[in-house]
Amino acid sequence: MVKKLTPMSEDFNQWYTDIIQEAQLADYSPVKGTMVIRPYGYALWEHIQAYLDKRFKETGHQNAYFPLFIPKSFIEKEAEHVEGFSPELAAVTHAGGKELEEPLIVRPTSETIINHMFSKWIKSHRDLPMLINQWANVVRWEMRTRLFLRTSEFLWQEGHTAHQTKEEATEEALQMLDIYEEFTQQVAAVKVIKGIKSEIEKFAGAKVTYSIEAMMLDKKALQAGTSHELGQNFSKAFEIQYSDEQNKLAYPYQTSWGVSTRLIGMVIMAHGDDQGLKLPPAIAPIQVVIIPIIPKNADSNLILKTAEEIKTTLSDVRVEIDDRQEVSPGFKFNEWELKGVPIRIELGPKDIEQNSVIVARRDIENSKTKVLIDALPSEIMNTLDLIQNDMFKVTENFLSANTSHADDMDELLQKLKENDGFVSCYWTEDKEDELKVKDLTKATIRCYPLENTDEKPSVNKPELQGKYVIFSKSY
Amino acid sequence: MVKKLTPMSEDFNQWYTDIIQEAQLADYSPVKGTMVIRPYGYALWEHIQAYLDKRFKETGHQNAYFPLFIPKSFIEKEAEHVEGFSPELAAVTHAGGKELEEPLIVRPTSETIINHMFSKWIKSHRDLPMLINQWANVVRWEMRTRLFLRTSEFLWQEGHTAHQTKEEATEEALQMLDIYEEFTQQVAAVKVIKGIKSEIEKFAGAKVTYSIEAMMLDKKALQAGTSHELGQNFSKAFEIQYSDEQNKLAYPYQTSWGVSTRLIGMVIMAHGDDQGLKLPPAIAPIQVVIIPIIPKNADSNLILKTAEEIKTTLSDVRVEIDDRQEVSPGFKFNEWELKGVPIRIELGPKDIEQNSVIVARRDIENSKTKVLIDALPSEIMNTLDLIQNDMFKVTENFLSANTSHADDMDELLQKLKENDGFVSCYWTEDKEDELKVKDLTKATIRCYPLENTDEKPSVNKPELQGKYVIFSKSY
Repeated sequence: MVKKLTPMSEDFNQWYTDIIQEAQLADYSPVKGTMVIRPYGYALWEHIQAYLDKRFKETGHQNAYFPLFIPKSFIEKEAEHVEGFSPELAAVTHAGGKELEEPLIVRPTSETIINHMFSKWIKSHRDLPMLINQWANVVRWEMRTRLFLRTSEFLWQEGHTAHQTKEEATEEALQMLDIYEEFTQQVAAVKVIKGIKSEIEKFAGAKVTYSIEAMMLDKKALQAGTSHELGQNFSKAFEIQYSDEQNKLAYPYQTSWGVSTRLIGMVIMAHGDDQGLKLPPAIAPIQVVIIPIIPKNADSNLILKTAEEIKTTLSDVRVEIDDRQEVSPGFKFNEWELKGVPIRIELGPKDIEQNSVIVARRDIENSKTKVLIDALPSEIMNTLDLIQNDMFKVTENFLSANTSHADDMDELLQKLKENDGFVSCYWTEDKEDELKVKDLTKATIRCYPLENTDEKPSVNKPELQGKYVIFSKSY
Repeated sequence: MVKKLTPMSEDFNQWYTDIIQEAQLADYSPVKGTMVIRPYGYALWEHIQAYLDKRFKETGHQNAYFPLFIPKSFIEKEAEHVEGFSPELAAVTHAGGKELEEPLIVRPTSETIINHMFSKWIKSHRDLPMLINQWANVVRWEMRTRLFLRTSEFLWQEGHTAHQTKEEATEEALQMLDIYEEFTQQVAAVKVIKGIKSEIEKFAGAKVTYSIEAMMLDKKALQAGTSHELGQNFSKAFEIQYSDEQNKLAYPYQTSWGVSTRLIGMVIMAHGDDQGLKLPPAIAPIQVVIIPIIPKNADSNLILKTAEEIKTTLSDVRVEIDDRQEVSPGFKFNEWELKGVPIRIELGPKDIEQNSVIVARRDIENSKTKVLIDALPSEIMNTLDLIQNDMFKVTENFLSANTSHADDMDELLQKLKENDGFVSCYWTEDKEDELKVKDLTKATIRCYPLENTDEKPSVNKPELQGKYVIFSKSY
């Protein structure tokens, strides 16, 4: 392995594809548009799952599992929902050697089947709130696909909740958005902007869609997670009714929220460089790799034994020793850089004489420090923390350096045409105006950021006060 | 909830169905033959997953994810495999608004797609052994379905490995069988018999299928897990070749192995009683429930505060307090018995005066012990261990008490017709003879137990030495 990667500056898309294949994160499958997630990529997903699952449970959610197949008639019950998903559906028409009476849809998302079940389970206000999460595969037939970012099948989690009041549902949707932000920023080390989607970009069937938006190294936006207030759209379509404290029947207010294996694409594109991946320590499957350097005539046993001893002292760290003999240390350096391992420890005979090792950080080019072996455990923990924080700051600075503001429509269009990056402005929600910008620049509204509640004259309707908004090209 | 369960003695199947619904383990879905796994049932699956996933990783396996959809032509590559699975396949014929050129099969198992990928990944002896596991949903269209035991879609794990030698593959298949045995006996607390399947019952495409067989409370057998030696069947069908140390091309030897949500059915049917579930502590989602008993005029604050304090001291235990006011303590007792919680702690004003509580074990009828609050933490840990061990012993004794031996064919047929339970005998492998027994008694060979290697004249061919075998009706 370790073919030369296409440099990022030359062709970002090819760099992305190369890295996924060469670092063995994923592979193309024989079925068009689907992918195989290889062990190194799947380990990233397991770390994402472990963190989020813990947070979901701490906030009172329980996991469950709903069927893969959904009757076609279910999808059709919520008008906006069916309109949004129709072009992407895959249908099972034959099973057990017979044609089915009604085609079964392979779930593109589980709102309909879950709300059907909610209508059986929710009878009283005592059954609320109902807080359910599912880890599952979903299928959305895509024409143009891209590993991790857009595949016909992907893995995700989908939360589905029901509440007595609109306020409670809003609070829930925002709470889950906060957990997504916490994950992307503190674990995946990627700065995001939390905000509200425009009408065009919101989920099919939602009242309000919140999202977190990250900036990739090519300055395009990536929607990393969404949380929806569904209002009573689905509870009315599926006749979910409960008797409240006064014994009156009422429809609950609902939310749904999800993140997917797309997060792996985000980690690749927010952190990598021409040498390959850069993984934040918190989700790196291997945090430290020890490379014994064994010149001819050196005491290989001593070096390997010391490597093992060092590994033992790093018991809280995910550490591996690369003791392959068929490849050179230089080859190994390249390979582990490609795989984005945060810290490399080099260990040769001279180091052992001095009771020290060389520690190299993946996130800073040509960084090498000599560290005494006795000091290694604390030094490694500190360095992992440093890397985690520094990697986040790099994305934070990059986003801020590549965000500019437009004061009128001409400036907005010009900036979106000429440069990549985020462009902020004040905007009055209007589908046609947004589509016009999209036609001219390929950029769309990523979100109305929650943190900025100012109102100023809008670029699309200068006579009206608009809200602060971010435009960008996106994945 | 807490409807009266159908007594086990009256109608075992109805008892099983009632318990699943009433304990909220699962529910029927609107798509025939599929099920919804509710949070309480899914929590059992999460404990099963956590234990096995850890053991798989400790033995060097890595998780990965392969596509749900498999080209029809792949399924047809291995002759026995396609014959075995054809009647159960579900096919996607339309996607993205168009008819597909080749129907896609929803995976019934992933041998074919995984081996296709192995043929790309395995090039050198250095790539072996390849040790992959996948947690996934699979679809096998079933006519007669039963919650957890036989549904058109179910959750499972499937291990797939490739090795240089036949010996290594045998060792792997047996190692995974041992892990399954360890799980069922030590965690699920169910005695199993490890053995080899007869030709009729082996996996479509395997050379040898090993299984673990448990006895349910109606004395029928349940196959709880299988591990297969695939020989070179799939590596030849999918042209997986590697260059060995001498640079010669060779086909690897392979294994596959799996357990599924069927294990939840096993736990229900191996341990329950007329009051409901009995869950072994190691996988019980709730291990201890504290029920405050608050008579009129009692100091409810003091009782609830003490309950909270007790919960805090039981930090290593999965414990909940049931402080609902709308139902009586008796109602709660019944409900938590139905849900199989291993230990109930009762706490009323008199108990508090004596600085003690009442501890009741779910596995022993009417068992109540007074325990001083100070002694509770160690007492509870000990009792959970005791329950775990006792529950296993009960299944061990039950299996042994309901196994008999047949010395000739008449005795075998008579015993299988008249009683349920396991019947052992000596047998010479012969498909027609086995089918004859099945026709007459509905029983099949569950396995040739590994632990008994004696050979004696066989009941089907008395002139030949046969192997020790277990016959039984089964799920």
